[in-house]
Amino acid sequence: MSESPVPLSPELLSGETSDIYFLRTQRIMEEEGVNPRVTMEVFPSGDGILCGMREVLTLLGKALPADAEVWALSESESFRLKETVLRITAPYLSFGIYETAILGMLAHESGWATAARECVEAAQGVPIVSFGARHVHPAVAAIMDYAAAVGGCVSCSTPLGAKLAGVPAAGTMPHAMILCFGDTVRAAVAFDKHMPPDVPRIVLVDTFHDEPEEALQVAEALGNRLQGVRLDTPGERGGVTPDLVKEARARLDLAGFQHVQLFVSGGVTPERIRAFVAEGAPVDSFGVGSHISGARPIDFTADIKEVEGKPLAKRGRIPGIIANPRLRRAI
Amino acid sequence: MSESPVPLSPELLSGETSDIYFLRTQRIMEEEGVNPRVTMEVFPSGDGILCGMREVLTLLGKALPADAEVWALSESESFRLKETVLRITAPYLSFGIYETAILGMLAHESGWATAARECVEAAQGVPIVSFGARHVHPAVAAIMDYAAAVGGCVSCSTPLGAKLAGVPAAGTMPHAMILCFGDTVRAAVAFDKHMPPDVPRIVLVDTFHDEPEEALQVAEALGNRLQGVRLDTPGERGGVTPDLVKEARARLDLAGFQHVQLFVSGGVTPERIRAFVAEGAPVDSFGVGSHISGARPIDFTADIKEVEGKPLAKRGRIPGIIANPRLRRAI
Amino acid sequence: MSESPVPLSPELLSGETSDIYFLRTQRIMEEEGVNPRVTMEVFPSGDGILCGMREVLTLLGKALPADAEVWALSESESFRLKETVLRITAPYLSFGIYETAILGMLAHESGWATAARECVEAAQGVPIVSFGARHVHPAVAAIMDYAAAVGGCVSCSTPLGAKLAGVPAAGTMPHAMILCFGDTVRAAVAFDKHMPPDVPRIVLVDTFHDEPEEALQVAEALGNRLQGVRLDTPGERGGVTPDLVKEARARLDLAGFQHVQLFVSGGVTPERIRAFVAEGAPVDSFGVGSHISGARPIDFTADIKEVEGKPLAKRGRIPGIIANPRLRRAI
Amino acid sequence: MSESPVPLSPELLSGETSDIYFLRTQRIMEEEGVNPRVTMEVFPSGDGILCGMREVLTLLGKALPADAEVWALSESESFRLKETVLRITAPYLSFGIYETAILGMLAHESGWATAARECVEAAQGVPIVSFGARHVHPAVAAIMDYAAAVGGCVSCSTPLGAKLAGVPAAGTMPHAMILCFGDTVRAAVAFDKHMPPDVPRIVLVDTFHDEPEEALQVAEALGNRLQGVRLDTPGERGGVTPDLVKEARARLDLAGFQHVQLFVSGGVTPERIRAFVAEGAPVDSFGVGSHISGARPIDFTADIKEVEGKPLAKRGRIPGIIANPRLRRAI
Amino acid sequence: MSESPVPLSPELLSGETSDIYFLRTQRIMEEEGVNPRVTMEVFPSGDGILCGMREVLTLLGKALPADAEVWALSESESFRLKETVLRITAPYLSFGIYETAILGMLAHESGWATAARECVEAAQGVPIVSFGARHVHPAVAAIMDYAAAVGGCVSCSTPLGAKLAGVPAAGTMPHAMILCFGDTVRAAVAFDKHMPPDVPRIVLVDTFHDEPEEALQVAEALGNRLQGVRLDTPGERGGVTPDLVKEARARLDLAGFQHVQLFVSGGVTPERIRAFVAEGAPVDSFGVGSHISGARPIDFTADIKEVEGKPLAKRGRIPGIIANPRLRRAI
Amino acid sequence: MSESPVPLSPELLSGETSDIYFLRTQRIMEEEGVNPRVTMEVFPSGDGILCGMREVLTLLGKALPADAEVWALSESESFRLKETVLRITAPYLSFGIYETAILGMLAHESGWATAARECVEAAQGVPIVSFGARHVHPAVAAIMDYAAAVGGCVSCSTPLGAKLAGVPAAGTMPHAMILCFGDTVRAAVAFDKHMPPDVPRIVLVDTFHDEPEEALQVAEALGNRLQGVRLDTPGERGGVTPDLVKEARARLDLAGFQHVQLFVSGGVTPERIRAFVAEGAPVDSFGVGSHISGARPIDFTADIKEVEGKPLAKRGRIPGIIANPRLRRAI
Repeated sequence: MSESPVPLSPELLSGETSDIYFLRTQRIMEEEGVNPRVTMEVFPSGDGILCGMREVLTLLGKALPADAEVWALSESESFRLKETVLRITAPYLSFGIYETAILGMLAHESGWATAARECVEAAQGVPIVSFGARHVHPAVAAIMDYAAAVGGCVSCSTPLGAKLAGVPAAGTMPHAMILCFGDTVRAAVAFDKHMPPDVPRIVLVDTFHDEPEEALQVAEALGNRLQGVRLDTPGERGGVTPDLVKEARARLDLAGFQHVQLFVSGGVTPERIRAFVAEGAPVDSFGVGSHISGARPIDFTADIKEVEGKPLAKRGRIPGIIANPRLRRAI
Repeated sequence: MSESPVPLSPELLSGETSDIYFLRTQRIMEEEGVNPRVTMEVFPSGDGILCGMREVLTLLGKALPADAEVWALSESESFRLKETVLRITAPYLSFGIYETAILGMLAHESGWATAARECVEAAQGVPIVSFGARHVHPAVAAIMDYAAAVGGCVSCSTPLGAKLAGVPAAGTMPHAMILCFGDTVRAAVAFDKHMPPDVPRIVLVDTFHDEPEEALQVAEALGNRLQGVRLDTPGERGGVTPDLVKEARARLDLAGFQHVQLFVSGGVTPERIRAFVAEGAPVDSFGVGSHISGARPIDFTADIKEVEGKPLAKRGRIPGIIANPRLRRAI
Repeated sequence: MSESPVPLSPELLSGETSDIYFLRTQRIMEEEGVNPRVTMEVFPSGDGILCGMREVLTLLGKALPADAEVWALSESESFRLKETVLRITAPYLSFGIYETAILGMLAHESGWATAARECVEAAQGVPIVSFGARHVHPAVAAIMDYAAAVGGCVSCSTPLGAKLAGVPAAGTMPHAMILCFGDTVRAAVAFDKHMPPDVPRIVLVDTFHDEPEEALQVAEALGNRLQGVRLDTPGERGGVTPDLVKEARARLDLAGFQHVQLFVSGGVTPERIRAFVAEGAPVDSFGVGSHISGARPIDFTADIKEVEGKPLAKRGRIPGIIANPRLRRAI
Repeated sequence: MSESPVPLSPELLSGETSDIYFLRTQRIMEEEGVNPRVTMEVFPSGDGILCGMREVLTLLGKALPADAEVWALSESESFRLKETVLRITAPYLSFGIYETAILGMLAHESGWATAARECVEAAQGVPIVSFGARHVHPAVAAIMDYAAAVGGCVSCSTPLGAKLAGVPAAGTMPHAMILCFGDTVRAAVAFDKHMPPDVPRIVLVDTFHDEPEEALQVAEALGNRLQGVRLDTPGERGGVTPDLVKEARARLDLAGFQHVQLFVSGGVTPERIRAFVAEGAPVDSFGVGSHISGARPIDFTADIKEVEGKPLAKRGRIPGIIANPRLRRAI
Repeated sequence: MSESPVPLSPELLSGETSDIYFLRTQRIMEEEGVNPRVTMEVFPSGDGILCGMREVLTLLGKALPADAEVWALSESESFRLKETVLRITAPYLSFGIYETAILGMLAHESGWATAARECVEAAQGVPIVSFGARHVHPAVAAIMDYAAAVGGCVSCSTPLGAKLAGVPAAGTMPHAMILCFGDTVRAAVAFDKHMPPDVPRIVLVDTFHDEPEEALQVAEALGNRLQGVRLDTPGERGGVTPDLVKEARARLDLAGFQHVQLFVSGGVTPERIRAFVAEGAPVDSFGVGSHISGARPIDFTADIKEVEGKPLAKRGRIPGIIANPRLRRAI
Repeated sequence: MSESPVPLSPELLSGETSDIYFLRTQRIMEEEGVNPRVTMEVFPSGDGILCGMREVLTLLGKALPADAEVWALSESESFRLKETVLRITAPYLSFGIYETAILGMLAHESGWATAARECVEAAQGVPIVSFGARHVHPAVAAIMDYAAAVGGCVSCSTPLGAKLAGVPAAGTMPHAMILCFGDTVRAAVAFDKHMPPDVPRIVLVDTFHDEPEEALQVAEALGNRLQGVRLDTPGERGGVTPDLVKEARARLDLAGFQHVQLFVSGGVTPERIRAFVAEGAPVDSFGVGSHISGARPIDFTADIKEVEGKPLAKRGRIPGIIANPRLRRAI
């Protein structure tokens, strides 16, 4: 995992993306001179894979005074429903306005990481690549890819996401390129000619002809330099099925192209991955889009559990901290 | 709706948050001298409310040459499954690397706007406020609030979102503030003392006592200056129910506080809003969180349909443009 | 179990509550001089806990001549669908008019006892109290409570039911009393002042304030004399939940009232009992109402299987007795 | 409907079948000198047909002082979920201990009357007879039959129930009688010989032979004196079906016995009645057992809504009376 | 509909394919001299389209004596559950052994005709061709095709079936032929060269290449002589979808081949036909296989309802004939 | 299993019941001189019991030249979804027109055999007789009975089916015979008088009286010569139930007729057989009709997998043969 510092935007730091009532609370409490030392605990609304904590700790590191104390689970650890994943003890005003940001980072990133983990587990060792940048706003595309890598993806499609996550960016070629060239083989040859040697030669083979047919044409053109082909059959043609993968494998093998790998994309979900695995389809890697990038955030809640060392809680919650031996001192 | 310019980040403009294969395609096509004039169409995977188009057109405005042509639906219009919402005719290389960003903006923002619209329609006139910033990454919290306003929310919780959308930011007070003060009435009085006159006095009334009881205490303390109370009963206490709203109304009325409004939050969904409306619960406004902010993006797809004026399409798609009389010339 | 004699009403003995066709049959058979010695068997339409047999045997003891023979399962034994639970061999006219009463006693009482047993089994050792008298006609309220005790309830709410069953009558205080006093603490103090020492001080704590708050007020007023509090939260407030019980326990403990027990009532069913047990909610006792008292009777059927020692049966039934080694000679 | 006075048992009047906490409340309030004038309202947990009110008013008539006021719906009126069916204004101690009895009478009797009404409505004019005494305790068998008549049954099987309801008792002959005689025709002839002329000659025809066959044998024996036959086919033979009724009708008609009516019993429910009606089966009357007598009570709740003229209610309820223009002054 | 005589096999006429107990019955009744004039009625177990009656009447015409009377519904009429479709009055021994054959013809053929009708109705005017011979035994393949035509199919695949039904036999070309030629265009050209002019040039276009691609190759080779193409995409490629049909149409039109029709086959069912119609897919004709040929027979039952003019029936049936004004005298 | 030769009809051999496109293909290929040596494989669309292979091999034996090679599974073996059950290597024109017949024989007969096997397995040793000839066209009635025997039925109702399968034909007596005699006992006595000694005396006992009653009458008339009775209660009387079988057994035993067997027919399915077995009903044999004869064919598919020794396949299929070690050389 990358150790590069996490950038925090000025809007976040100024509270402009916080719920406004935290800003108002800050002003009122300052004016009234109320600023107790509190303990706040954060817990999730479901099971999952923790992500965003690195960013949260960077934020708290900037915000908290020297005598604050923070306990937390680590990035990429699993968590359970209602388990305490973060405990902050500090003067309230030192961090109160960041409650929105802290919860939002954990919720959104853990949602993505958890969905990625589902795919990784379903694939039983077949690598998963995060391909969903096109389904989220560009302002979070790289963070989504980072979270997908935390969940176990081996690479992702955005350069910035790859940099955040410390993994290689991955991609083959889009339909647009092949349509502009007007011919798959011509596009493949141009790709091979201009790309640096470390970029794998993986060619998309469903644009103009039947997939196995186009795969054979490309394999004949690039020979041993071809690393693989990508099957991305649209729903109008039934999508990629285990049978199609098996047939493409058989036809490539029959023609002597045993070295050409098969990369599957298009509407891939854990359920479909499990079907490919169960039917023994020889997939070499899956590209997953909206199952990861469109995953629902896993909501987190922050509760004040002690004020000036005294257990306390709003109605409906147990006063005092909830012990969790898995927490480690983070600040 | 706000007319303020939409800021575009340097990472977006440089393509660092694009799928890497578009960057590679750009390099290959430039080196090969291939750059046809193409027509690309964009269509959604479901019905919804269009949002993000303002940002997309800002981006295209920067990127496209003078002879380009763009037709589009407008921000906040409704769209149907597979309807063409955007058609770009231009040299491919002038906008190809922005396919990821264009689709991501539309997908994520339309997802939020559509979910907001569902709530607005369910509420049959009762105002909806967007309260979900805490469930998304702070990098998109304001954009989410903007989209919620496009979908029909009357206000939202983040100052930056409110600014983007041209609506007032809204908020009452958090449980944390009341717990720090140790007493709801004391917190309410401080709020009233320090907030400017234009900030509505709406007090959260479920922290220490039964909701109607706490509402009466606050009403007695603030009198006519109290605009409303917020009911946010936690699930451990059964959540806010239509019966609770009716009872709070009755007890406030009985004590002469007919002017105090009732604001409901906590796990509010269109289904629950419909139940409140159906049972005649006198709610004055709803705060909606994760139903809007955690809404699944509505995936969009971009297809090249003409190259140099000639109809064409990848396998599975109809070659040539799909007529849509609702489109208007945008660039 | 109590050994007190079961009272039988004059209307029952005279046949006024029997199906009239048995009275007509008696007259016809007497006039025709037909009165064979028959064997009648009684079996249930489902599995359950037998109750009412004590009353049935009292009735048969009064009705049958010296040479009659009765075999039966005992009060509180379990039975299975279609198992013979009672076999009477006697001249038909000596008991024929009581078929209605015999079946009715077994059906109604076994229905209640079986429902009580379900609760007892769900509670895994936590005591169950029968609180359902208000859902049945007063003419059977005490018999219902007796049957609940046969099914395993440790006490019940009616004095007459408690006497029949040989268990203590139990109760805390009704909302009506607290509303008449206008204050829960005042009502609790009066209760403590006037009740004999053997009546447990259990105070209902949901009338005016939030349950844990009212519980603490009462605990402070009665101190060590307070045995427990009853949580009976209405559905309009979400009912009693496992979380509420845990929180009340935590807040009482935090204030030093570890000795105060928690008694749960209000819509309690086996399913909800199982949820409390599964979530580890520290309930000290449950009060069950309509799940027991509104239980459907378990229908019983009586069949003549031998006439003058000869196997015989109506169409649809096997002629001759159905052996059941669990039966014991009762008369 | 009968106008005969409703008998009230000494145990009911002494409170021995009340929840014990009402007796304790009475003692405490007397000793404390607390006895406010209260208004209590009673409402049901579902829709139904009101029954038991006659008995409740008899009880209140005995208990209340001269200045009390009672408003109520009338016996056999329909009511809706949560509608106020009874409002008592009186000093609390004059009727407090009868809350259990009042609710129990209404709950149990309305449950039976409502189930009877369902059958009556399903039958679209075909008469329904209450035959379920054998499924309830003899202490309430007659009250159940009374309630069934309130719900619309034209007669019932117990003499005491018939007397309470002012309808004729009805019955044919039991299987036991036919088995004792050893022959259906012989039993039918004896019945005809010894019964007074006003008892309808309806003979059960499924004991020894196929139903239409036995019906013809009986019709030939009794000729014009036979009013009808009862079909009560056991489940082991498929129960009574619309086809069987049609066939019996056809075979009787073919043999010239058009005057012989068909009476159907055995597991009859509204759903089965609707099937008979929908298929045009010529049934002349239905006997209904456990669908009515085993009906779940419809729970009622009593709430104090005013104390000394001041609106008040426990948490979860609206203080003050709930207007219901259908109520009429009853005391 | 064809008027050609229906051939009846010697095994059928000799009774070798009848249930043996009819043969035994014949012998016993002959030896006993029992041969009453009976009326037998035949009715179905469900709704449907009558088929097989032509064959039944041919058989009865051969078997019955001069004084027999037969009333029947006609081939291809609709019938309802339990409606009398055939009534025979004749000496029992003249037709008793043919009960098996009569019921079997009606059951099997009506099953097929009814399934065909479902497809025809779903298609709303688009012609349906029966293609299911390969799913039934060759001994009934032609009869199945005849029944499909009775149900509304415009043609069928077997020459003998077409002859029986008086419709043209239809077919395109099998995958086997194309695979033997090794090239679709070569096969198409050979087909065009050797087939008589009245055989429509419809070419199967999914063997070697993507369907629209292969369709265009064939259209270019045969030009105006090509009547249509058949799409029969296998399940491994997602089957034929409405989108594929639309795309093939669009690509053919774009290339100027508006005259080339689209014929769809492969797993076609009424449900799928309705989907094609609902989505507006321009299908010119459907080939239906196992939905018709694998249809469950609609069981028929024969009942003797009169013996020597006297109404009679077995237990469970109404004695005497069931009037049906739709019947017409057939013999 | 019978070894008698399977008759093949002239229509089958001439191709008149083949799909017409095979006949056209034959003509085109002959005229073009195209006739490669191909390998065709046949596989099913589901699991089942193989039937029809005997007939297929007879047909191929007639059609193929000396150098052909055929591998196959054997009649009555089980097969799995997509398993190769038949592989033919021969010049295409020698067998191409028989594809329809080969698939049809396997599909229809395997469908029947598989349904029969389900019944046999459900019955756990109780014999099953095929009684469904009346639900299929007489042209396949005997083949259906043959297939039922292949699936495990011990006998069948048609003489020709019994001959094909090498099992005895079975039958009791039809309702028609009893109605013609007008009396079950009279019919039974006549049956006994005229049937050869090897025909079992099994009498149908539900025509005029209740089943056990009629069984006793017949048993008394035929005494030890009665082998069994058949219960075939119509649906209008509830059908045959496990309870009816038990009661009939009990009443026969009670009267000393322990030797009389019970044969059950009428709507028998594997599910109902399992219910009889699970409830311990003493059935001696089941007659199964439409569950077997109305069974859906199990579709088979034929694929060319090699042409002149070279692996090949249409799109969607794997080129080359699919190894199956269970195949044995058949020709």
